[in-house]
Amino acid sequence: MQTQSFTSVAQQFKAVFLDSYGVLKNYNGLIEGVQHTIELLRKKNITLRILTNDASRSQHQQMESFHMIGLRDIQEHEIITSGMMAKQFLEQKILDGKIAYLGPENSAYYILQSGLEHIPVRDVDLENLDEISAFVFLDDEGFDWNTDINKTINLLRHKNLPVIVANSDKFYPVSKNDVAVAAGGIAKLVENMLNKKFIHFGKPDSQMFMYAYDQLNASGTFSKNEILMVGDTLQADILGGNKFGLKTMLVLSGNTSAEEAELQINATGIFPDYVCESVVS
Amino acid sequence: MQTQSFTSVAQQFKAVFLDSYGVLKNYNGLIEGVQHTIELLRKKNITLRILTNDASRSQHQQMESFHMIGLRDIQEHEIITSGMMAKQFLEQKILDGKIAYLGPENSAYYILQSGLEHIPVRDVDLENLDEISAFVFLDDEGFDWNTDINKTINLLRHKNLPVIVANSDKFYPVSKNDVAVAAGGIAKLVENMLNKKFIHFGKPDSQMFMYAYDQLNASGTFSKNEILMVGDTLQADILGGNKFGLKTMLVLSGNTSAEEAELQINATGIFPDYVCESVVS
Amino acid sequence: MQTQSFTSVAQQFKAVFLDSYGVLKNYNGLIEGVQHTIELLRKKNITLRILTNDASRSQHQQMESFHMIGLRDIQEHEIITSGMMAKQFLEQKILDGKIAYLGPENSAYYILQSGLEHIPVRDVDLENLDEISAFVFLDDEGFDWNTDINKTINLLRHKNLPVIVANSDKFYPVSKNDVAVAAGGIAKLVENMLNKKFIHFGKPDSQMFMYAYDQLNASGTFSKNEILMVGDTLQADILGGNKFGLKTMLVLSGNTSAEEAELQINATGIFPDYVCESVVS
Amino acid sequence: MQTQSFTSVAQQFKAVFLDSYGVLKNYNGLIEGVQHTIELLRKKNITLRILTNDASRSQHQQMESFHMIGLRDIQEHEIITSGMMAKQFLEQKILDGKIAYLGPENSAYYILQSGLEHIPVRDVDLENLDEISAFVFLDDEGFDWNTDINKTINLLRHKNLPVIVANSDKFYPVSKNDVAVAAGGIAKLVENMLNKKFIHFGKPDSQMFMYAYDQLNASGTFSKNEILMVGDTLQADILGGNKFGLKTMLVLSGNTSAEEAELQINATGIFPDYVCESVVS
Repeated sequence: MQTQSFTSVAQQFKAVFLDSYGVLKNYNGLIEGVQHTIELLRKKNITLRILTNDASRSQHQQMESFHMIGLRDIQEHEIITSGMMAKQFLEQKILDGKIAYLGPENSAYYILQSGLEHIPVRDVDLENLDEISAFVFLDDEGFDWNTDINKTINLLRHKNLPVIVANSDKFYPVSKNDVAVAAGGIAKLVENMLNKKFIHFGKPDSQMFMYAYDQLNASGTFSKNEILMVGDTLQADILGGNKFGLKTMLVLSGNTSAEEAELQINATGIFPDYVCESVVS
Repeated sequence: MQTQSFTSVAQQFKAVFLDSYGVLKNYNGLIEGVQHTIELLRKKNITLRILTNDASRSQHQQMESFHMIGLRDIQEHEIITSGMMAKQFLEQKILDGKIAYLGPENSAYYILQSGLEHIPVRDVDLENLDEISAFVFLDDEGFDWNTDINKTINLLRHKNLPVIVANSDKFYPVSKNDVAVAAGGIAKLVENMLNKKFIHFGKPDSQMFMYAYDQLNASGTFSKNEILMVGDTLQADILGGNKFGLKTMLVLSGNTSAEEAELQINATGIFPDYVCESVVS
Repeated sequence: MQTQSFTSVAQQFKAVFLDSYGVLKNYNGLIEGVQHTIELLRKKNITLRILTNDASRSQHQQMESFHMIGLRDIQEHEIITSGMMAKQFLEQKILDGKIAYLGPENSAYYILQSGLEHIPVRDVDLENLDEISAFVFLDDEGFDWNTDINKTINLLRHKNLPVIVANSDKFYPVSKNDVAVAAGGIAKLVENMLNKKFIHFGKPDSQMFMYAYDQLNASGTFSKNEILMVGDTLQADILGGNKFGLKTMLVLSGNTSAEEAELQINATGIFPDYVCESVVS
Repeated sequence: MQTQSFTSVAQQFKAVFLDSYGVLKNYNGLIEGVQHTIELLRKKNITLRILTNDASRSQHQQMESFHMIGLRDIQEHEIITSGMMAKQFLEQKILDGKIAYLGPENSAYYILQSGLEHIPVRDVDLENLDEISAFVFLDDEGFDWNTDINKTINLLRHKNLPVIVANSDKFYPVSKNDVAVAAGGIAKLVENMLNKKFIHFGKPDSQMFMYAYDQLNASGTFSKNEILMVGDTLQADILGGNKFGLKTMLVLSGNTSAEEAELQINATGIFPDYVCESVVS
């Protein structure tokens, strides 16, 4: 697999969209040297956005978390999360009733600020669902869904509702080699058991790309082929970027290892325009 | 939906295969009147077998459990479980190494008596998988798989193994209206995350039908159209019975309610030869 | 199922996005009265766009076809097709080699004008695939794909390529009650046989919504909740509109009949904001 | 991938079940040397059965076809086909009405001899389906299903029926490198479009294994671990044999090449007990 230098490729673009996990950080924190890469992009006046399938924290919390691990100049508006998209959907489409959710209280706090009341699934009274108007799978890093999952299934068997999945990723990494089931995986289990399809947010779907693109064009003129999408996952970042019409670059510092890259590209038929070792190359 | 009397239909057959849950018992224990139905079958010299997608208890434990709720004359050899099929498979196909499993110790005890060592997934050392030679999803009624499920996924990412699902049911009933995720549902989640297919045991697969049929013919001569399969689930009991070539009867005392029966039959294209309210009719 | 009048709902919006088949026309041609509805929208200064999962004709040909059946004032730029999105993708992402395709010559002519050479799959030499750089499933109304489908499968077994599906609809209507397999259905067959996922264009994906929305905002200011998406198919029009953040209206003049609407809404969990008999109501 | 000699392994068994295509013959006719292998099995008194996912010819026609390509001593009762299983099902479960089918007349002749009238889908009157009681996908080698497939879809949209797939294989080989869509692939397309599941016959399902096993035990005593299942396809032959409890051997002379075998075994988790180059080894 022939790779190129990230910085030499990036300089051919006016804007770079970066995935977060596997690209900027990993289970250890910030990937060494990323700070320098970001500085370089700033110096070259390359606009950057971080597009992350993460619904566990608000834009502001995401920013603070980047600051904490050493990326001090990332600004709030530069971060776009699948959670923001889910929040927007709830605001625009669910206008009354209560929103039930599966997942931890703190991510609830952020996403569910649409003016409606929200209630954790464990507190829902299955005998009295009249007021429940929607259901949300929140991001659940570390959440014990063992009992709540059964209640979720029974709630959705008892009443038909719009169901939103705030992060469609099926797993998240917990160490170099290991992963854990994420909200998107749990949602798939429930979809499979109920034989339904929910509304998923996050890459490869276009919403985040669109949001970032519209934001860019509010203050300038960017054509799609002047933007590079950089990510470590073929099915999310590269497929999403390709479908949106951006140039795409696969980095080998996360989900897709150097050994597997060629095999996976061929197996999936998802072709990045560029491949590089990492953004620190 | 036109229904018939169970007893008048059953008397046209030499043998009756009965599903257990939803047919003989439910969340409340024995369905009222079942004892009388069984006595009637005995009196008419109709051979009976109980075919249950259950891997949580041995044949002997199943028998004791029937005795306890009041079906005192059920004999051990009359009970056929998906767990027995999984056990047989392990004995015949996995000849060395250790068998790792997800699920409660007590169902492990029964299924894993194949002579090989077995180890709960939580005790497996992911850094040293050389000895692990197979993986089993055991029946998990009430088991907290919240953390073990992640370890299972990582184990199966690290090493390719034959994976056996001892009960392919995706959920089990916990009350009149509610269900809980079962071993088959958890296995589906893992299959989906790993993009693999495991080896599932239980109806609608033919193994249990075949086992029961061979057992019958060891002591007599039964042609397939002299046997009636009775069950409450179209996709497991009726499809399995139909494919095996038995006559089939759907009972409305369990998973499939009278209101939904016609809709579901049409939606699935799985047609029972008979429908009755319950075996007490 | 409670329905509303289309015109009274539409007047609450600044723009209306209309599906074509099942909404404006059907197997018989223009739905009676549609001309009047369009005039009304014009009079009220409501901007309109037609969003159609159709890749068989160019924007210009689509316009001519609307003129021919009596919608004389539809303009070229008011029509947005899945074929346009596929064409855009090919232009932006496939920069050299030849594009092989399955489907009729005339839809090829339109979509494949990206500067690259294109070649029908039947003329491809399977022994010499070096130059082939992408594959497109074109819209195939009336196309005999019986032999070409096998060649397509073998081509894609021999060489890994980006594969584009210009219209993701699985079938198209041919009369009041009957349908025929469409490009999206054939593509699904090939995906299933090869165990791959192709890149699909058309609703419910966001590209067409985004294209129409960007176009609108080039000459005015429309917020998403000032736009109504109108369609006859829950999985394409309503799901797509909902995910994009538009208000949505299901019409009962096409794919979804009045009798099935409630059942399907409940079964799918895809909820339109409004339901009306037809746009002529 | 370490391989063994077929003949030295086979001699450890009392019976050998052989897949046909890819094991005994290929696109060229009989695989060179197979005649000798069969003679050797006869000499050693090893019982043999041929288990083939083929529904295009009757047992008798299959036998004649083996004779014609040079396997002169294969007897009719030694051949078991998925078509026989489908025929049996129709005889036992469909007792009145007419059976509609998709596929060529000549395979119809054989399978549909259950006493009921049968009618090719192209002759069915969609306005008058009262008499149609079942639908069969026959084996369709070389059949032009381009128009009949649409009629099939509409028939099954208009009336709910038991639907039988006489051969679940998705494709069949037409040359060294190339394949063509088979009945099972077409059936999958229709299942996908209608969102239903049909009743499939053929390996890996147990019916053919069971039929062969019962036949063997009518004239002797064979335990399952005295039988070797030999095939070229992991998902059909090896999975089916494993689930039935037989020892299994993968041959590399057909669908699974030497280069891909290890990768596919790991990817699927379907482990053969033995691997050999071919039955001529």
